[in-house]
Amino acid sequence: VSHRRPLLCVPLPELPDVQSGDDLAGMLTSVAPADLSGGDVLVVAHKIVSKSEGRLRRMAEIEPGKRALALAAEHGKDARLVQAVLDESAELLRTRQGVLICVTRQGFVCANAGIDRSNTAAADELVLLPEDPDASARRIRGGIELALGVRPAVVISDSFGRAWRVGQTDVAIGAAGLTPLDSWQGRPDAYGRELRVTEIAVADAIAAAADLARTKDSREPAVLVRGLERYVTEADGPGAATLRRAREQDLFR
Amino acid sequence: VSHRRPLLCVPLPELPDVQSGDDLAGMLTSVAPADLSGGDVLVVAHKIVSKSEGRLRRMAEIEPGKRALALAAEHGKDARLVQAVLDESAELLRTRQGVLICVTRQGFVCANAGIDRSNTAAADELVLLPEDPDASARRIRGGIELALGVRPAVVISDSFGRAWRVGQTDVAIGAAGLTPLDSWQGRPDAYGRELRVTEIAVADAIAAAADLARTKDSREPAVLVRGLERYVTEADGPGAATLRRAREQDLFR
Repeated sequence: VSHRRPLLCVPLPELPDVQSGDDLAGMLTSVAPADLSGGDVLVVAHKIVSKSEGRLRRMAEIEPGKRALALAAEHGKDARLVQAVLDESAELLRTRQGVLICVTRQGFVCANAGIDRSNTAAADELVLLPEDPDASARRIRGGIELALGVRPAVVISDSFGRAWRVGQTDVAIGAAGLTPLDSWQGRPDAYGRELRVTEIAVADAIAAAADLARTKDSREPAVLVRGLERYVTEADGPGAATLRRAREQDLFR
Repeated sequence: VSHRRPLLCVPLPELPDVQSGDDLAGMLTSVAPADLSGGDVLVVAHKIVSKSEGRLRRMAEIEPGKRALALAAEHGKDARLVQAVLDESAELLRTRQGVLICVTRQGFVCANAGIDRSNTAAADELVLLPEDPDASARRIRGGIELALGVRPAVVISDSFGRAWRVGQTDVAIGAAGLTPLDSWQGRPDAYGRELRVTEIAVADAIAAAADLARTKDSREPAVLVRGLERYVTEADGPGAATLRRAREQDLFR
């Protein structure tokens, strides 16, 4: 249809359950296609990254404090979960309608500080966000390069809600080897004039595209994305931290 | 790599300049591949939809009122552009940092009420959002069916900024024949427990994926997306209006 290479998103085969301490890069390598290339992007659901890094808490071991107990009573939530959310948050932005919108310690704005209860082997286990998802992405990229000699870009994704849109979309919470933001500022458009849209959040769009290629009830936590060589960089680069809006640029905090 | 059909996004060939009154469905039909199918999704940049519908204004013909003059002076903007933004807005949410964040008359929250100056043939021409983008999507879908006898889903996209993330991503402002929101509420995950992520904004993810397949300086306003048959519906359905968060659900307005 076009002269350009199409965008292609293919889930990698299912992985076995990931445990704390597992070599995630090795596990991904074992299911990656033989023709994995340095121009590919590998999108990995944060949950298996968190698990491999031991970013887990058991509800039974959490002692809720005063604030957690009050918030839990007010919002009809489990006080131990609320305590875990507070422990992962730098700030609570909104606590209405039974939803806790947080600024996480990593600087992300999302519900429940990104803590997840689903898809975990133990019913009372909480999955936290990775401590430093850009560092996680760099480690995975490095591990893949060690094993296979190629350096695909790595994106770590999570599903975030949006302020003014219904439903979640996947965004990039970590990235390595990818231009996270494609800035068009100063570049002319097809008519040589100024563009209204000046910065495309490429890493977030990649995370959203990858999520379309799988279903949530599958165990396909990694998706291979092809056709984006123009955004893949040799250096690990600034990562997805670039996409966190700074507090002083935030009109809605 | 997987048993499932991969997600594929391919830009359709460049279109000639779209003019007010043009038969957009016919133009898209003429560049669509011969194997266009009823399970495909066609993502169309809103700008050519707006142009074909005559949703254009000339700066020279706009007389700014008092409020527009005051806002323009305060934010260093062209008062005629500000007047056009006010005319398209139901409400201004924020007017700081030279940015006008609006609720458009259609109910979208975005900068400058979605008005665009770029990629237009006349330097002083403004491109407004379609009056009713879901109706536009239905018309395009109907026109394609008339011409080719197949009913692919149609998504109309625009690039919106986000409250807490840097950069824009494409979202669906109109849709026909697509499940806009994939609700997982009540459905068990791979471990049979409750999911944190319960509603995926499928139409927005499709718009974002399609945008990755082209470059902003190209004249490729339409992208064919394949592999999403499970979201394509015979009925035109509720459209992208589903994805506009209702005021009473909005924690950040």
